[in-house]
Amino acid sequence: MSRERLYLFDTTLRDGAQTNGVDFTLQDKQVISGMLDALGIDYVEGGYPGANPTDSEFFSRKPDFEHARFTAFGMTRRPGRSASNDPGLAGILEAKADAICFVAKSSAYQVRVALETTNEENLASIRDSVAAAKALGREVMVDCEHFFDGYKENRDYALACAKAAYQSGARWVVLCDTNGGTMPHEIETIVGDVVKHVPGAYLGIHAHNDTEQAVANSLAAVRAGARQIQGTLNGLGERCGNANLCSLIPTLKLKQEFSDKFEIGVTTEKLATLMKVSRTLDDMLNRAPNRHAAYVGESAFVTKTGIHASAVMKDPQTYEHVLPELVGNHRKVLVSDQAGRSNVMAELDRAGIAYDKSDPRLTRLVEELKEREAAGFAYESANASFDLLARRTLGKVPEYFKVEQFDVNVEQRYNANGQRVTVALAVVKVDVDGERLISAAEGNGPVNALDVALRKDLGKYQKYIDGLKLIDYRVRILNGGTEAVTRVLIESEDETGESWTTVGVSPNIIDASFQALMDSVFYKLVKSGAQA
Amino acid sequence: MSRERLYLFDTTLRDGAQTNGVDFTLQDKQVISGMLDALGIDYVEGGYPGANPTDSEFFSRKPDFEHARFTAFGMTRRPGRSASNDPGLAGILEAKADAICFVAKSSAYQVRVALETTNEENLASIRDSVAAAKALGREVMVDCEHFFDGYKENRDYALACAKAAYQSGARWVVLCDTNGGTMPHEIETIVGDVVKHVPGAYLGIHAHNDTEQAVANSLAAVRAGARQIQGTLNGLGERCGNANLCSLIPTLKLKQEFSDKFEIGVTTEKLATLMKVSRTLDDMLNRAPNRHAAYVGESAFVTKTGIHASAVMKDPQTYEHVLPELVGNHRKVLVSDQAGRSNVMAELDRAGIAYDKSDPRLTRLVEELKEREAAGFAYESANASFDLLARRTLGKVPEYFKVEQFDVNVEQRYNANGQRVTVALAVVKVDVDGERLISAAEGNGPVNALDVALRKDLGKYQKYIDGLKLIDYRVRILNGGTEAVTRVLIESEDETGESWTTVGVSPNIIDASFQALMDSVFYKLVKSGAQA
Repeated sequence: MSRERLYLFDTTLRDGAQTNGVDFTLQDKQVISGMLDALGIDYVEGGYPGANPTDSEFFSRKPDFEHARFTAFGMTRRPGRSASNDPGLAGILEAKADAICFVAKSSAYQVRVALETTNEENLASIRDSVAAAKALGREVMVDCEHFFDGYKENRDYALACAKAAYQSGARWVVLCDTNGGTMPHEIETIVGDVVKHVPGAYLGIHAHNDTEQAVANSLAAVRAGARQIQGTLNGLGERCGNANLCSLIPTLKLKQEFSDKFEIGVTTEKLATLMKVSRTLDDMLNRAPNRHAAYVGESAFVTKTGIHASAVMKDPQTYEHVLPELVGNHRKVLVSDQAGRSNVMAELDRAGIAYDKSDPRLTRLVEELKEREAAGFAYESANASFDLLARRTLGKVPEYFKVEQFDVNVEQRYNANGQRVTVALAVVKVDVDGERLISAAEGNGPVNALDVALRKDLGKYQKYIDGLKLIDYRVRILNGGTEAVTRVLIESEDETGESWTTVGVSPNIIDASFQALMDSVFYKLVKSGAQA
Repeated sequence: MSRERLYLFDTTLRDGAQTNGVDFTLQDKQVISGMLDALGIDYVEGGYPGANPTDSEFFSRKPDFEHARFTAFGMTRRPGRSASNDPGLAGILEAKADAICFVAKSSAYQVRVALETTNEENLASIRDSVAAAKALGREVMVDCEHFFDGYKENRDYALACAKAAYQSGARWVVLCDTNGGTMPHEIETIVGDVVKHVPGAYLGIHAHNDTEQAVANSLAAVRAGARQIQGTLNGLGERCGNANLCSLIPTLKLKQEFSDKFEIGVTTEKLATLMKVSRTLDDMLNRAPNRHAAYVGESAFVTKTGIHASAVMKDPQTYEHVLPELVGNHRKVLVSDQAGRSNVMAELDRAGIAYDKSDPRLTRLVEELKEREAAGFAYESANASFDLLARRTLGKVPEYFKVEQFDVNVEQRYNANGQRVTVALAVVKVDVDGERLISAAEGNGPVNALDVALRKDLGKYQKYIDGLKLIDYRVRILNGGTEAVTRVLIESEDETGESWTTVGVSPNIIDASFQALMDSVFYKLVKSGAQA
C-alpha cells in the first residue's frame, strides 16, 4: 500500500529559543541542527537572521546537511514599505538558507491591534514577501499566525490570508495555534474546512501546549489533511512550549493508524536514537530531563510495584503500549534487590565485563551503586565511571598511580596597566611506582589548570594519554546554595574518536571535577590495556 | 441554559503514588486530601487499604471533608474465592470510606495472561464484588482496566465487563486506558459505542500520558458522553503519569465549549487557587515544578520575543488564550537577546527604574544588553543583574566599594589519619571609602569560601548584608570543554524573604562566580537604599 509523505519541521532553534531560560550559542545551534538532520527531520529552522548576532552568524553559511532543508524565519515586509525597501526582509532574503518561513498575521483582530494596518495591506505584504523569496529560488512557507483564533472571529479573512500565501506560490501554508488555546476537535473541524481552499498537501500545523494538547492538536490536523507538522525537541518553546516532536515521531512511526498511512523521514534505525537525541539537548542546555516524558522519559517504561510488575515479567505487553527499545529506551522494574541485580548484570553485559553470577562481589557492586546513586552519582550518564567502578569492585583495575596531593590557586588582581586579571595555577604530586612526580600548570580556570597539570607527567603511562582531550564539562548543583553537593560530568575523547563520560560528586566543585578527571584518565588506561 | 454535572475524581494519592520517586507519608496524604477537598474535587481516592500500613492507617477513619467523597481502591474478589472468603476484599469493605473503586480486568487477553482465569469467572468476580460493597451502603465504581486495548481485541468481552459492573449496581463504570497508548479519536469512537450499552452519566474515563495525550483523551471521552474524569494533580502517576487535573480543570472551566455544557465542583474562586495547589504538592514532594506546565507553570504566561512583547503590552489578549489571574498565575515579559527597546522599557517599568524615553543612555542600555547576552549573560534569568546593569548605565548606582584583589586556594592531601581532605581558603581585599579591609575564610568549596570572605567585613555596609544568603548556584558551560566560557547564576535571599538572581560569565568559573556574588551584594545595597 503506498503511503503519503508527511513532513517534519523542527523549530527548536527558533521557537524553542523563546523558551524561558534557554539561550543557544552559535555552537549549540550547529550541534543541534546537525543532530536534527541526522535524525531525519525534513526542515530545520535555524533562527531569525538579522534579529540578533548569533542568528545572523548562523545564517552566514549553509550547514552541510545530509537530508534536511535549512530554513530561515522572518517577518513579511512591513506595512507601507515595498519588499525591495525593507531592511528586515532583505536580511532574511540574503540569509544562506534553502527555505524561508515567513510569519504573517491571519487574524483581522491581530492585524488591527498588533500590526495597526489594514486587512488588504497585510494580504499584499504576504503576496509581496512570498514573491520576493520565490524570485530568489527559495522554498517558501508562510506561518499563518493566530490562524485558528482568527478563523473563529472572521473566517473569510483567515482563509484569505492562507489563500494569498498559497496563490503567491508558497510551498507550505502553516496554520498556527499561536496562543495555544484551541481544542483538538476544533483544529480538526477548521483544517477540514481549510483543505477545501488550500490542498492538504500544502498545509502545515504549528501547535502550542497551553492546554497540554499540542500533540493531539497536531495529530488532529494531520487527520484532517495537513501534511507538515512543526514542533520542537522535548517540546521546548515559549510559555508552555511547542508540539513535542519526541512524542509525535514515535506515535507517527509506531501507531498503526499513522504508520499505515504515512511515511516520515525518520527511519526505524534513527527512531532508536530518539532518547539519546532528547537527552543530548537537555544536557547541552543543562536542563533536568523530564523523567515522565512520553516514550523518551527515564520513567516511561518503569513499573513500580506489585501486580503490574509481576504481569510485566510474565509478558511486557501487558503494561507497555510499545516496545521501549524502539525509541532507545528500556524497561525497568523497581521491585526488589533481584531487579537491581538483573539491571546491573544487563549493564555489565553491555559493557563487556565478565562476571560470575555467584560472586559475592556482584552483590557488593549492586549495593555500592545504590549508595553512590543516592549520593548523587549519575552512572546512567557516566558510562566510563560505571565501567571503572564495576571493574574495580570485581577486582580488575590496577592502581596505576596515586595522586598524593594537589593544590590549585586562583588569584584576581589589577595588573600594572590597571586591568583586572585572573590567574589559575595548579600543582599536582603523583606517585608512579614509588617515584614522586610533581607538575605545575596554568589554565583558564582552576579545573583546566588541574587537568593540564595532572596529565603533564604520568611517567610510563604518559604515552597512553597523549591523545586524550576533554570535550565537555557540565556541572549541576544537587541541593541548592554554594554549600550544596556538586555533580560534575566530564566528557573526554581520544585519538580514535571514541568518547566517554565520567562523574564526580562532592561538596567542593574542584574535588568533584578532579574525581571525574581521574576516572577519565584511568578509563583511558584500562581501555588502552596499560599494565601496572 | 441548564448544564450537566461533570464529576472529578482525583487519584493522586493512589495512582499518583505509583510515580517513580514519590512516597507519600500518612501526613502527606492527610494534607493533600484536605487540599483536594477544598479545591472542589468530587472523589478523593486515598489509596489501597490493606496494601501497605500507610494506606490501612489512612482508611482507619474518615477525613472531615466538606465536599469530596473519600474513596478506597482495591481489587475485586480473587478468582475461585467467594466474596465473603477473600481477606483482600474484606480489607477494602472494612475501610472507612464513602465510596469503593474496584479495579477489574476488561480485556480477555489480560484475563488469560495476567489473571490466569476464565472470562466468566472474571465477570462473576465483578458482579460479586460490586454487590458486596453495595450491600454495605458504599457508592461503588469499577475501573475497567485495559478497557480500550481489550475492546480492540474483543469488543464483546470488554462491553460484557462494563455491563456486568453497571447491571450489578455500580454508580460508575470507569473506562481505563491503562497502558496509555490509545489515540483521542479512538477514545471518542469507542466511548461513543459504549454509551449505547451503559448510559454516559454512568461512565468515567481514566487516561495515561504515554503518548502525551491523556488530557485530550479525557476530553474526547467527555465529548462522547462520559461524565466522570479521573486524573491527578500535576499529572503524577506511573510511567508518564495520569491525566493532569491542573490542565483539565481550567479547560473545563474556561473553554466555552465545556463551560457552556458542564458544571464542575470547582468554583471560579477555587480555580484561582489552582497554581498554589499545584505548587504545594511539588513542594511537599520536593519536586522541581514544571515551569512550562499548562496554565499553572511559572512560564505559562511569559513572553520573551520583541514582537510578541510589544503586542502583549498593547493588549494581553493578543498572546494569551486565557487571563493568567483566573488560575492564580501572572503575566511576565522577559528581557532577552531578542528583546527590543519596548521590552527593555517594560522591564524598567516593572523594576521601578525611572528613565527618559529620549535619553541616549537608554539606547546604550539596549545595545549593551544585546552584546552581553551574545557573550553569554542570561539576563532573562537574572533579574537583579539586569536591574543593576540598567541602573548603572542610567547612572544610578554608587560605587559602594571596590574589590582590589582576591585569592582562593583549594588543596587536597592526605591528613595524619590517612584520610583524603580538601580545604578551600579565600582572601579578599576590599577598598571601602579609601580604607583597605582584608578578610579570609574557609568554605566547602572555592566559591563558598569567597562568598564568606567577601561578606565578612564590608565596613559601614555590613549592616545591610547581614541577612543575605545564597539559596541556589547553577553553572553552565557555554562552549564545551574545560577551556570554555562558564556562566554562573546565583540566587540569593534576604531577611524579608525576597529572592533575586544574578549572573556572571567568564572563561574562569571562579571569576564568573565572583561577578555574580558581587552583583548580588550590590543589588542588596541598592535595594536597601544604602548611600555611598
